[in-house]
Amino acid sequence: MTTTNNIIAGVDLGGTTTKAALFSCSGEMIHSIQIPTPVSSGPEAMIRAAADAIKQLLAESEYRSSQLAGVGVGVPGRVDIHRGIAVYSINLGFRNTPVKSALEQLLGVPVAIENDANVAALGERWQGAGKNTSNMIMVTLGTGVGGAIIANGQIVHGAVGSAGEVGHIVVEPANGLACNCGNTGCLESYASATAIIRAGEEAARNGHSPRLAAHIKEQRSLTAKDVIDAAKAGDHGAASVIQQAAYYLGLGLGQAASLLNPEKIVIGGGVSAAGEYLLAPVRESFQRYCYHHAAHCELLCAQLGNDAGMIGAAWLITASHPA
Amino acid sequence: MTTTNNIIAGVDLGGTTTKAALFSCSGEMIHSIQIPTPVSSGPEAMIRAAADAIKQLLAESEYRSSQLAGVGVGVPGRVDIHRGIAVYSINLGFRNTPVKSALEQLLGVPVAIENDANVAALGERWQGAGKNTSNMIMVTLGTGVGGAIIANGQIVHGAVGSAGEVGHIVVEPANGLACNCGNTGCLESYASATAIIRAGEEAARNGHSPRLAAHIKEQRSLTAKDVIDAAKAGDHGAASVIQQAAYYLGLGLGQAASLLNPEKIVIGGGVSAAGEYLLAPVRESFQRYCYHHAAHCELLCAQLGNDAGMIGAAWLITASHPA
Repeated sequence: MTTTNNIIAGVDLGGTTTKAALFSCSGEMIHSIQIPTPVSSGPEAMIRAAADAIKQLLAESEYRSSQLAGVGVGVPGRVDIHRGIAVYSINLGFRNTPVKSALEQLLGVPVAIENDANVAALGERWQGAGKNTSNMIMVTLGTGVGGAIIANGQIVHGAVGSAGEVGHIVVEPANGLACNCGNTGCLESYASATAIIRAGEEAARNGHSPRLAAHIKEQRSLTAKDVIDAAKAGDHGAASVIQQAAYYLGLGLGQAASLLNPEKIVIGGGVSAAGEYLLAPVRESFQRYCYHHAAHCELLCAQLGNDAGMIGAAWLITASHPA
Repeated sequence: MTTTNNIIAGVDLGGTTTKAALFSCSGEMIHSIQIPTPVSSGPEAMIRAAADAIKQLLAESEYRSSQLAGVGVGVPGRVDIHRGIAVYSINLGFRNTPVKSALEQLLGVPVAIENDANVAALGERWQGAGKNTSNMIMVTLGTGVGGAIIANGQIVHGAVGSAGEVGHIVVEPANGLACNCGNTGCLESYASATAIIRAGEEAARNGHSPRLAAHIKEQRSLTAKDVIDAAKAGDHGAASVIQQAAYYLGLGLGQAASLLNPEKIVIGGGVSAAGEYLLAPVRESFQRYCYHHAAHCELLCAQLGNDAGMIGAAWLITASHPA
């Protein structure tokens, strides 16, 4: 068997859904599957379900299982990539779970694991908005604000694997909003979907956004997309909410870029669906706050959506990865 | 000749002084020398003077020149470590100066070059306050605020070699002081020796610091050390100046640590001579602003003083360095 016939697999082990796919070694997706993650059945069952998903993918493909060169897995929470252990994952209930060795036993191929935010960044770097960069920051605007740093072509893990917390850069040192992490003034409190919804609700209550007030009255709920849509449709209150999120995002990313001098910053997550409407004011604020030698950095929206994690997980197997 | 008999050399090519030393491969300094850098004579003369200094060190030592395994050089400004070129150095008047090849020709041994802030960090990591760390930030409080980042055991250079600019993290986003870089609110404008002197002078003018006012009247000048000494001696105005510098330093370093999760942050430069008097309030502010998963980071004063650059430069030759 020649290596050119080999395929690799990537798994994104999420708190709700487990996504898995087969890829060629150059990153073309061959076949993918989504299953509900059996969180309530415990760690062993979740790992077995992931293994079964890969076996099913192989069975449904034209490839033999002997052609599978390895499997990469993205796991939420803290991961020890060297020992292949999910140290702690609130979403999955993992605690020192030996994901690598368990999957290797079930599948008989090498397995590498990595944190989910990091595999998303690696995916975008391999096949998405971050192509051809050795220095990249990824920030994900969702319920929270996640992040990952690639420097010298490698993920920066830091001392205990907590590097990349772009969402917890303090952008409002005095009188900042309270953050879930216990600090105040974190970027997450201003630029996450949660923060945008909260600010949108406030604009509705204060009479600054008639459109959002009407929407809430009608739908009894509000999403970040609703706020973005109202802003794009000309609602001034909603536009201020997005402007504020963009201002703080540009400030936080400017600080990160002054430190790290990346070629690209890739912005993903639900809020990034706002596209250029969000990016234009982010770039303006970024240029204001970033050290000028680092200000050449490109700010781009992520391209791979929910597939980024699987793709980056598969990349772990292609690379000369320390794990 | 066995490699255990080999020695290495480190050069710190400064705008005023060129420092050079021979080291054992495990980092003991064997013999050192300081010469004035002949800046006005041009790049070639400066490089020749560095080569001559190393030849003199060898002649004065018990080692033969054939035992010299290589030379590492720290250069202020922008450095292309892969091509061995000093791209741009205001202090030295270098512009695309081929330091590596010129020195290799003069000395007949391998040469590696690196930016001066980066070699200082590598020196502290090898022989000083940063021992046994793979993830470290160094910040140097002098005329400006310099910095360097070590992640995954390697210097982070970034896209154009400008990574590590801790001094240009914006710590005061609104109404910040003007910085030399053109931005406002940079850490450098609050925590450099220059900033401390400026704030000390203001405290003297405003009547907040009788001791500094008297000092200025008498000496017609003020140093950062004078402000620190006045603060330590109980002058409230001077103490506020140091407190403010410490607050902003803790804030900026907290943001850097949230991103990079270092094991240690090493604080060097003249201002760091204040020792624990400065470090205690820096740690307090750091703990307030740093993401809690990264807050275990140790904040320490540098240990190697002006030798850090030579030592780190010599380390370039010991390591499997990309250059």
